[in-house]
Amino acid sequence: MRMRELSDRTGVAVPTLKFYLREGLLHAGERTSPNQAQYDDSHVDRVRLIRALIEVGGLPIARAAEVVTAMQTPGMPVSSVFGIAQRAVSERALPDDTDATYSAGAVPSDARGPLPTRTTGEALIAELCAARGWAVHANNPGLAMAARVLDTYESLGQRRLLAVLDAYAAAADRVAAADLAAVAAAAEETRGDLSVMSDVVIVGTVLGDSLFAGLRRIAQEAESFRRFPAPPPAASATPHKQDPPC
Amino acid sequence: MRMRELSDRTGVAVPTLKFYLREGLLHAGERTSPNQAQYDDSHVDRVRLIRALIEVGGLPIARAAEVVTAMQTPGMPVSSVFGIAQRAVSERALPDDTDATYSAGAVPSDARGPLPTRTTGEALIAELCAARGWAVHANNPGLAMAARVLDTYESLGQRRLLAVLDAYAAAADRVAAADLAAVAAAAEETRGDLSVMSDVVIVGTVLGDSLFAGLRRIAQEAESFRRFPAPPPAASATPHKQDPPC
Repeated sequence: MRMRELSDRTGVAVPTLKFYLREGLLHAGERTSPNQAQYDDSHVDRVRLIRALIEVGGLPIARAAEVVTAMQTPGMPVSSVFGIAQRAVSERALPDDTDATYSAGAVPSDARGPLPTRTTGEALIAELCAARGWAVHANNPGLAMAARVLDTYESLGQRRLLAVLDAYAAAADRVAAADLAAVAAAAEETRGDLSVMSDVVIVGTVLGDSLFAGLRRIAQEAESFRRFPAPPPAASATPHKQDPPC
Repeated sequence: MRMRELSDRTGVAVPTLKFYLREGLLHAGERTSPNQAQYDDSHVDRVRLIRALIEVGGLPIARAAEVVTAMQTPGMPVSSVFGIAQRAVSERALPDDTDATYSAGAVPSDARGPLPTRTTGEALIAELCAARGWAVHANNPGLAMAARVLDTYESLGQRRLLAVLDAYAAAADRVAAADLAAVAAAAEETRGDLSVMSDVVIVGTVLGDSLFAGLRRIAQEAESFRRFPAPPPAASATPHKQDPPC
């Protein structure tokens, strides 16, 4: 198909498609004349993925470019693809000094050196990793993200919120097991096709945060009505008990 | 204390503090002369909360302002505070047409009218709500967030990712139960002080997404090494088995 049709099928404007081509987010079409190229279904799929990463996953364009480039690297192990996808969605939440390029297998050179002073959050996360048998690299972006939130709870005088940690960790294990089961199912279906597995890892990692956050809001509201029913005057006007719209 | 000291104690510049005062994020100090006001610990706490919502929670300033304004409304029921906090952190992830102002108790006027055509995602979420006994208002922002991700999985040809839904929902229930237990603990400690409960709701809702996402990345890496050990050459160079840095 020509670029015009690629635009029609994906709903993405031609200048934007040209930008994706220039920036390497979209692979080149097959050139049929000096000014024309043909595109196929692989381009439609790629454009849809880029839009999903940006619009639904909230990635900045530069991060989406890194992710799709990683997907094209042949033979990249699943754990490295996870690392790239994780870092892409973690950037916003990370303090500046941890925003180093993720590289699987790399461990800071001081890993055996003297321990730096740990914040409360870092100590709690280290205990949690030990308790749950989570063995991960020191540059896993989740370590800094989680520790930072715990430190913030403490600095806001909300130490009572630290009590949620074990339940969150158990829930995270359950979610991660489902994430990896989906990757394993894809591996089995495709006899270990790494590009299909990478797709599952990237889409599931980037969009899965948003899926979980959505479900958490639903469960929170349901649980808050259970624990804290609205006061009587409001309750009579609250239709959710007789007629749950969801 | 004077504004200069408020700035020193919070690390927030004076012009920024003045902006917070003008925009209503920060309550006024006690005026001691036409050009001077005194601030107290309540101002320090409030400034720290605002910074946490913006820097750690990633809220735009306008949303942070809505949240702290809601916290100041006396007697607002816990479920409504949840609604405001939820919507504040959901804005980015929601499609434009669902970005209406949250108002607890409001149900769209067509709730009993003819059913609009449901997307796959909406139908899956409705089934899930029924299966889990989640009764929530139709304007819960999580409904649209979660349905949109599921629809995106489908449009990307990743129906296999729909298989994660039940595990995510069970995990969301567990997280929400912990969230509400923290609110209940605060209620008990303070004999139902709504302002303390609101604080817990807001901080826990806004920062809890980030805490969970961090833990999910850790659990994903741990689980991915369990399921997909790195290939032999890399494995020998991978120190995480002998020497987990976390």
